[in-house]
Amino acid sequence: MELGLLYSGGKDSSLAALLLDSFYDVTLVTATFGITDDWTHARRSAEATGFEFRTLELDPDVAEAAVDSLLEDGYPRNAIQAVHTHALEELAGEGFSAIADGTRRDDRVPSVSRAQAQSLEDRHGVDYIAPLSGFGRGAVDRLVEARLDVESGPSETISRADYEAELRALLVEREGPDAVGEVFPDHDQTSVTGFR
Amino acid sequence: MELGLLYSGGKDSSLAALLLDSFYDVTLVTATFGITDDWTHARRSAEATGFEFRTLELDPDVAEAAVDSLLEDGYPRNAIQAVHTHALEELAGEGFSAIADGTRRDDRVPSVSRAQAQSLEDRHGVDYIAPLSGFGRGAVDRLVEARLDVESGPSETISRADYEAELRALLVEREGPDAVGEVFPDHDQTSVTGFR
Repeated sequence: MELGLLYSGGKDSSLAALLLDSFYDVTLVTATFGITDDWTHARRSAEATGFEFRTLELDPDVAEAAVDSLLEDGYPRNAIQAVHTHALEELAGEGFSAIADGTRRDDRVPSVSRAQAQSLEDRHGVDYIAPLSGFGRGAVDRLVEARLDVESGPSETISRADYEAELRALLVEREGPDAVGEVFPDHDQTSVTGFR
Repeated sequence: MELGLLYSGGKDSSLAALLLDSFYDVTLVTATFGITDDWTHARRSAEATGFEFRTLELDPDVAEAAVDSLLEDGYPRNAIQAVHTHALEELAGEGFSAIADGTRRDDRVPSVSRAQAQSLEDRHGVDYIAPLSGFGRGAVDRLVEARLDVESGPSETISRADYEAELRALLVEREGPDAVGEVFPDHDQTSVTGFR
């Protein structure tokens, strides 16, 4: 069965790929608004892992609305959630028999409720799978340690292709460089450089 | 990493074992109150799959309380949930570094909330994993079709080792054979006879 997995090049979506690998023909799919070329970082991680890779074009209007939401809220939660929901809807229309993402049990965002998952499945005729949603933070950390080679550091220094990179860029373009620190809290990111 | 998986011999817990197999040293663990020898059905399924197998002794007082609850409620939901919670607590004390069960996204019972999962992990120092909680009914059915050999039929004709078998037996012992049909709705069960 062909499965398309939303892929950022980070540890969660890479671990999700490994979990699904023995059941599905997994294609790693990196969503991009076309604002930056950060999707190429995900392609590099994908090449190191040996999975098929492709990109998924998102609607630039969704990015603009997400930045409006960032500025209004002063925090990124709703913006990231809206972009993730849009990405899943787009991925569901790409012809895969199953789609998946790297959301974890302990994630606050993005999250997909059971009702949202069933709606996605019913409207598009696909299975939606969140292979890490039954794994807590500790379990994920231990599996990453055992199975992935990663580099990690503050968001602004690590090259990956999550939605944050493009939203940051659009925010800088609209409001200047100081705006980023005001809405994105400091946190460490990871980028996967290989599988063990 | 050693992982103990609550195992009934049915399709959900068998599929959970396959999902975890490439990340953990999985032992299939069948809980029993010692009321019947239905746990031997799970052992037979386990032998067909090649995983390690053992039993876990549950507290008979919990079975009595569950039957009280069955009779009071007139349906099995709360009773099954209480037994599952007890089984997870007991399993968490058995020395595994991770424990797991076969609960699915679309299951009403048993279910384990994020807060319950985190509490279990914090109190016992184990990871709790629900590998099927990110899979809907359709995805599970398709994976079972692809990977497991199963036999299925009405609950009373299929030999498996879920909590229902022992609670049914205890209910008959206390209230006579007619009591079972009043609280357990007719539904089909599956028993796994092999992996593909």
